[in-house]
Amino acid sequence: MMDTPLVLTAFLNRAEKYFGKKQIISRTSDTKIHRITYADFAVRTRKLASALADLGMQRGMKIGSFAWNHHRHLETYFAVPCSGAILHMINIRLSAEHLIYIINHAEDEIILVDEDLLPIIESIEHELKSVKTYIIMGDDVDLSKTTLKNVLSYEQLIASADENFVFPDDLEENMTAGMCYTSATTGFPKGVEYSHRGLVLHALSLGLVETFGISEREVIMPVVPMFHVNAWGLPFASVNYGANQVLPGPNFTPKILIDLMESEKVTLTAGVPTIWLGVIQTLDQSPEPRDLSSLKLVVSGGSASPKGLIKAFEEKYNIPFIVGYGMTETSPIVSVSNYTSEMDDWTADEKLAIRATQGLTVSLIETRIVNENGEVPADGQTMGELTIRGPWIADEYYKDERTEDAFRDGWLYTGDIAVRTPEGYIKITDRTKDLIKSGGEWISSVDLENALMTHEAVFEAAVIAMPHPKWQERPLACVVLKNNDIEENSVKAQLYSHLEQDFAKWWLPDDIIFLKEIPKTSVGKFLKAKLRDDLETLLVK
Amino acid sequence: MMDTPLVLTAFLNRAEKYFGKKQIISRTSDTKIHRITYADFAVRTRKLASALADLGMQRGMKIGSFAWNHHRHLETYFAVPCSGAILHMINIRLSAEHLIYIINHAEDEIILVDEDLLPIIESIEHELKSVKTYIIMGDDVDLSKTTLKNVLSYEQLIASADENFVFPDDLEENMTAGMCYTSATTGFPKGVEYSHRGLVLHALSLGLVETFGISEREVIMPVVPMFHVNAWGLPFASVNYGANQVLPGPNFTPKILIDLMESEKVTLTAGVPTIWLGVIQTLDQSPEPRDLSSLKLVVSGGSASPKGLIKAFEEKYNIPFIVGYGMTETSPIVSVSNYTSEMDDWTADEKLAIRATQGLTVSLIETRIVNENGEVPADGQTMGELTIRGPWIADEYYKDERTEDAFRDGWLYTGDIAVRTPEGYIKITDRTKDLIKSGGEWISSVDLENALMTHEAVFEAAVIAMPHPKWQERPLACVVLKNNDIEENSVKAQLYSHLEQDFAKWWLPDDIIFLKEIPKTSVGKFLKAKLRDDLETLLVK
Repeated sequence: MMDTPLVLTAFLNRAEKYFGKKQIISRTSDTKIHRITYADFAVRTRKLASALADLGMQRGMKIGSFAWNHHRHLETYFAVPCSGAILHMINIRLSAEHLIYIINHAEDEIILVDEDLLPIIESIEHELKSVKTYIIMGDDVDLSKTTLKNVLSYEQLIASADENFVFPDDLEENMTAGMCYTSATTGFPKGVEYSHRGLVLHALSLGLVETFGISEREVIMPVVPMFHVNAWGLPFASVNYGANQVLPGPNFTPKILIDLMESEKVTLTAGVPTIWLGVIQTLDQSPEPRDLSSLKLVVSGGSASPKGLIKAFEEKYNIPFIVGYGMTETSPIVSVSNYTSEMDDWTADEKLAIRATQGLTVSLIETRIVNENGEVPADGQTMGELTIRGPWIADEYYKDERTEDAFRDGWLYTGDIAVRTPEGYIKITDRTKDLIKSGGEWISSVDLENALMTHEAVFEAAVIAMPHPKWQERPLACVVLKNNDIEENSVKAQLYSHLEQDFAKWWLPDDIIFLKEIPKTSVGKFLKAKLRDDLETLLVK
Repeated sequence: MMDTPLVLTAFLNRAEKYFGKKQIISRTSDTKIHRITYADFAVRTRKLASALADLGMQRGMKIGSFAWNHHRHLETYFAVPCSGAILHMINIRLSAEHLIYIINHAEDEIILVDEDLLPIIESIEHELKSVKTYIIMGDDVDLSKTTLKNVLSYEQLIASADENFVFPDDLEENMTAGMCYTSATTGFPKGVEYSHRGLVLHALSLGLVETFGISEREVIMPVVPMFHVNAWGLPFASVNYGANQVLPGPNFTPKILIDLMESEKVTLTAGVPTIWLGVIQTLDQSPEPRDLSSLKLVVSGGSASPKGLIKAFEEKYNIPFIVGYGMTETSPIVSVSNYTSEMDDWTADEKLAIRATQGLTVSLIETRIVNENGEVPADGQTMGELTIRGPWIADEYYKDERTEDAFRDGWLYTGDIAVRTPEGYIKITDRTKDLIKSGGEWISSVDLENALMTHEAVFEAAVIAMPHPKWQERPLACVVLKNNDIEENSVKAQLYSHLEQDFAKWWLPDDIIFLKEIPKTSVGKFLKAKLRDDLETLLVK
């Protein structure tokens, strides 16, 4: 067989050759919808690559993007990796401290940043060691308004660039194409690299009937951010299959998403449960019915989807709603909760139970749920840790000693505790890791605990996840004071200001409560399940 | 990313782990339907591998299969390559001379042969130089009845073999898994090797919505023989996706195929146009209506599908009928004539014209139609030679000097002359070797054949080049009528007026003659050289 490498350039070429008339629709601001064809997109992407090459972009160089979901971000998704460089998709929601760490750790040399996100980058510029050039993405960028040095306008660059630029034809499929950082249980985020081969195979698999069934016929709206695990591969798959894509841009609300779904006749959309909870609430409260009849599939992932949410979509609004499971380390799709034919005559409740699982493992990926006796039986009962292997699963953290915790014997150890149902579906029951997932973003309870315990009034502190109707989980801080006689409200205010110094606002606990003690194991580890159960009896007052 | 190789073992493991209850249904004789689950199939495949290992099978060794489509052939499809050996799928329809050549050329060391095909192998045994062992596949094989030496019974081997055999976990994806020989225009057949990587990616792609959309929900009947280009990858795809498969066994008729489709609720079937012509004729003549309501897709390939045939399936029987294009060198799927969304509101005739093309190039495969000026424009007019590149395209003929004719500059030169439609579809107009060049202008014999076959009186038609003193070559139409009793001169006049509607006068055949049959290759392609040679003996009168 021919030694044809699996590289993203093939996707770009395919869109241009066969789907030149299909569209990328970007909401670039509250008042503007921008439309571009794949034919134009391909030309602009070549021009961007040419401009970046002129700025010194080389193979293996890290180029950061700091942006919402829009056509320019999509252009960087191809211009950078198809040139042999590496696109570092920076999570715009990280704290300044973490942003500084990951940009320096990745050694990003150019950063493409959205105009409305400039203040964040401006505030940390002096700490960034490797960045030589900033490029501002926006419609009418005024370069005189930023404090950044060595700064250029994306559109000006494109306007003067070479549209006959030719991408190299000697890329190897195992070259790194992109990278994302993922929050750790403790400490700084960990970097995950994606190879061309992994991204191509992952995106290809999204066209399978057994996953999302993407084809040229779809209109795809990734609500999941493009700075989160490649927006679950949807931008790559859309380009390869020639599907129209709708990119919802900055600061969208549920109503804006519904407006886009209705006006652009979106057929498939994907995001975290918090988004869908908001969409359902808005639909329920809408004064007149919305026409979402084009919508054939909602994909939910990033954390568990409550059954009530699935039921609302499927039964009340007649929109199929499936769960996908994955993580930053897995590109991300590992399993999908589609039904198999044996379930066709199951009851609604039985089917709902399947929908709410993490699903059946997709082709080319292997999953094993293992405990001390090896792989657990598919009995729906025996718990073990979920481990994963396959061509789009990471095999290390980028230049990080924490690699050995998660990657062992050729498998990724996810830290998720799961059972396998008799039908072969993965069902996650718990997490070994001490993380709180709030609106699709990780919050490290350990980091919050450590910070709280540096405060002079605090004896010890445990931070636990509490269920939340909108964000799924929110942190609650449980604090034992050194001296219980002091005035609680004043301590609480002190602790909040203490935390605000180090953490993004959305990391701050929803409440801080004061306990007599925190239950512990024999070796002194917090027993968080018991803490949750006994919370009331442990209160100081 | 993990360096997980793309090997067929993953397909076998997946079927056993997730689809153990799904079925392989084999018609093993005129009176017997054999049923086996994927769970049983996996056990039997391991036992077969164990038995073959005991017989000396080693990595890289060629193992021949000489068999119809059935579960035992499917077991060899996995037992051999998953052990690191190479399955040579021998075309049972080749002449003795060609069989001897290819078995000796491949150096097959073990041959698995169907009981009813024994006489062919017995008659050439003395010429086979490398074969050490024969294994007879059948339900109740009596070894005393064959003249073969060193012969064993498949079922006896399985019965005593080790079911705990473990396939090696260190196969590399570029290892050869299988091989087929393809007929050459002249000389002995040419060998094509398939790698694990190529077969895995090809089979994976058959689960894409843009191709056949195979999933666990399908019941798949490959009518295309398993000795012809991996039965178009359907057995591999069915195992990976957990689809039930219906294997039609020896010497089937159109009626037997219809019976199987009806009783087993087949949803997808695939074969050459000759098969479908026979099926339509049988349906048309059936005294009572047949229930083919389960059938969602008929795939036709191997040679051009006449529009009349497509129309009969789609309009008369309401069964979607698509054309796939490929060849032995391409594993085989290169392109598929599915509609894209822009065609949804086209007229029936416009849609039929698209269906009859060779289709849109599938993901991961590149096609270029090239003439002396480079790639031709997508104008539906400019002809060039179709060239192909991709991870499941061969890069050579096995130990064969003819490699350099077909494989140049990293591309496969197909010898097919084609145009690209404005929608990007490939439309083959002729073979380079089979074009008619009249007075310096090309005439497409395929276009004339297709037009003739849309006439109600015509069963099939071949158009060949005849030498001409003035114009060098002129077309001669050779027609097989559905009913030979009708008056030839009146039909001839009708056919000419039929052709005159669509073709320039100089394209019209110099004569139309009526034949009893058109000689075909073992896979149903017209043998035009033989047709020319045997013309007189084939005449109806």
